[in-house]
Amino acid sequence: MKFIIQRDQLIASIQDVMKAISSRTVVPILTGMKIEVKQHGITLTGSDSDISIESYIPAEEDGNVNVEQIEEGSIVLQAKYFPDIVRKLPEKTVEIEADENLKVTIRSGKAEFNLNGQDAEEYPQLPKLQTDDSFELPTDLLKSLIKQTVFAVSTMETRPILTGVHIKLEEGNLTFTATDSHRLASREVPVSDSNTAFPSVVVPGKSLNELNKILDDTEEPVEISVTNNQILFRAKNLNFLSRLLDGNYPETSRLIPEQSKTVLYAKTKELLNTIDRASLLAKEERNNVVRLNTQGDNVINITGNSPEVGTVSEEIVVQSMEGEELKISFSSKYMIDALKAIEYEEVKVEFTGAMRPFIIRPANEDPILQLILPVRTF
Amino acid sequence: MKFIIQRDQLIASIQDVMKAISSRTVVPILTGMKIEVKQHGITLTGSDSDISIESYIPAEEDGNVNVEQIEEGSIVLQAKYFPDIVRKLPEKTVEIEADENLKVTIRSGKAEFNLNGQDAEEYPQLPKLQTDDSFELPTDLLKSLIKQTVFAVSTMETRPILTGVHIKLEEGNLTFTATDSHRLASREVPVSDSNTAFPSVVVPGKSLNELNKILDDTEEPVEISVTNNQILFRAKNLNFLSRLLDGNYPETSRLIPEQSKTVLYAKTKELLNTIDRASLLAKEERNNVVRLNTQGDNVINITGNSPEVGTVSEEIVVQSMEGEELKISFSSKYMIDALKAIEYEEVKVEFTGAMRPFIIRPANEDPILQLILPVRTF
Repeated sequence: MKFIIQRDQLIASIQDVMKAISSRTVVPILTGMKIEVKQHGITLTGSDSDISIESYIPAEEDGNVNVEQIEEGSIVLQAKYFPDIVRKLPEKTVEIEADENLKVTIRSGKAEFNLNGQDAEEYPQLPKLQTDDSFELPTDLLKSLIKQTVFAVSTMETRPILTGVHIKLEEGNLTFTATDSHRLASREVPVSDSNTAFPSVVVPGKSLNELNKILDDTEEPVEISVTNNQILFRAKNLNFLSRLLDGNYPETSRLIPEQSKTVLYAKTKELLNTIDRASLLAKEERNNVVRLNTQGDNVINITGNSPEVGTVSEEIVVQSMEGEELKISFSSKYMIDALKAIEYEEVKVEFTGAMRPFIIRPANEDPILQLILPVRTF
Repeated sequence: MKFIIQRDQLIASIQDVMKAISSRTVVPILTGMKIEVKQHGITLTGSDSDISIESYIPAEEDGNVNVEQIEEGSIVLQAKYFPDIVRKLPEKTVEIEADENLKVTIRSGKAEFNLNGQDAEEYPQLPKLQTDDSFELPTDLLKSLIKQTVFAVSTMETRPILTGVHIKLEEGNLTFTATDSHRLASREVPVSDSNTAFPSVVVPGKSLNELNKILDDTEEPVEISVTNNQILFRAKNLNFLSRLLDGNYPETSRLIPEQSKTVLYAKTKELLNTIDRASLLAKEERNNVVRLNTQGDNVINITGNSPEVGTVSEEIVVQSMEGEELKISFSSKYMIDALKAIEYEEVKVEFTGAMRPFIIRPANEDPILQLILPVRTF
């Protein structure tokens, strides 16, 4: 095995693949990174069993030569050392060579590293997903869907299914939903050109967080395919494979109130900043609880209280307010997360009384829905 | 007590003063920040007993009004909350008011915080240093002196005096020296216009690190005064007071070899990067030991070795080399620290055999001196 490659390109691929590699794994060879060399290009693979990432560097692309002097073969290198070594090499190109005794030589300029490799035959085979049953989404839209929902997954292992995001594709509509049973985040988008449907898969929140870090903010399509227990995201030169969570995701639609008693429209940023300030003196209480009181004349009052430290109170004039008067308490953290996910200038908040879940949506009715359960303090 | 102040200016002062405040202190009131309001300006004070920082905001400066509606008084506010509150306020100005019951109100726009203050009378008085016996140094030069020496202080409390930097002013020469007994860093600069002299003070490394963070990189002078057990650094609108370490600093001059057997000149950056690469495979050994072998024809070879992982070897052509052949092993970390402190393009390294300390200096003979004890491996 041998090749000469552009260092910067190798670094970019290594960084992506490293997202899947953990130093704490029960399968020792998974602490390593697999390098597979073919005449058409180089594939790097990292995996922690839950997530597997393959990054491909084509030997030639758009008329540019990325990889030269290719001799086919494969090897596994310790991921603890390999990335730092490549990053600190002196020249712009790197030569990597492995002999039949699994001895690897990395050369750049006058620097030469000799590393003990491991046999790539011992590296687990990644499952090959059938991609007949797949659909496409622009990368930036996929990133938005993840960002607007994944923060709401549960971090408690008591109900493992809630640590994932529920993904559903039905009648051309794709829905992402996450809930930790105190709040819920969901968004629906139409998917064009797809005859595919899958009723319900649950992808670990951790997988989607890592995927979001790797994907560039482009309009290039990502191809998504699902089997019984795996989901594959295929972007340009990148395969991201995650296991799915077992079990039935709870029916969440009944949580969402159909009627509302108090509705207000506000500037998202203004409401967010006010809640953020109130949360500064809500730290002592469980869940950083703040209170919202309606005051009439489109004025609402947000307060926070930390008995030992002090209180904070702020009035804001909202765009409009209709319905019953209201005093309600809720987690400032949940509200801040929800408002950050809205991504539109104006927000609509619908309450159904102090003890019922309330809903935050963009004022323009884009189907982003954030739901928060209030806290009993009055 | 009352005043209205520019928020950004208050934030800058708070950030400086916070460097002295620790949440773990035996004197509870020192978890707070003292605010002292006089007609001429506002003084913020923070202290952890070892370090005390006073930041002054003049009511007027260069014809600009910084503070308005001043009513004199003072208060202590919990430093855990106050900085975040000010940082997140909605408007560019802040009104702060304290009543006789130590209730503090912070107003900005429609946000109002009510905090429980503490009596400023209970805040410890900072010692007033006589500044007759003082000298001045440009701020950027003081920062260089700190940066080039402080990293070499000991982190072990077994010999507390070595956790400080030894500062000496004699015959118009100011010397900073630090050593952890495995390496030594020192620099000497002439001090103009000073008839002051002090034989030997030892300032905690931690104090100098914090001071370095606060000082801006300007040529403005810093006034330095010393008493028996305190040192005061006085910059524009800033007083930084540190306790001194008790005890006698060891005589370090006899550590420095007067003769050398092998002398080489190299490009600082090139030598640094080569050692850095060799250190990647020296992690497993104690102190990240790398080896340097002279090869003749101005070539030196740097190697690192981690038995389980692999080896690294790199040759560099130095500018010139004279004297005996040499094989020497040393801590790559110490060498990297020393080379980073040199701040000049070319470096002179003087060896006196494989088991004697060696010296790194700028090639231009600027009196920066870095000394490293080798490690016995051959």
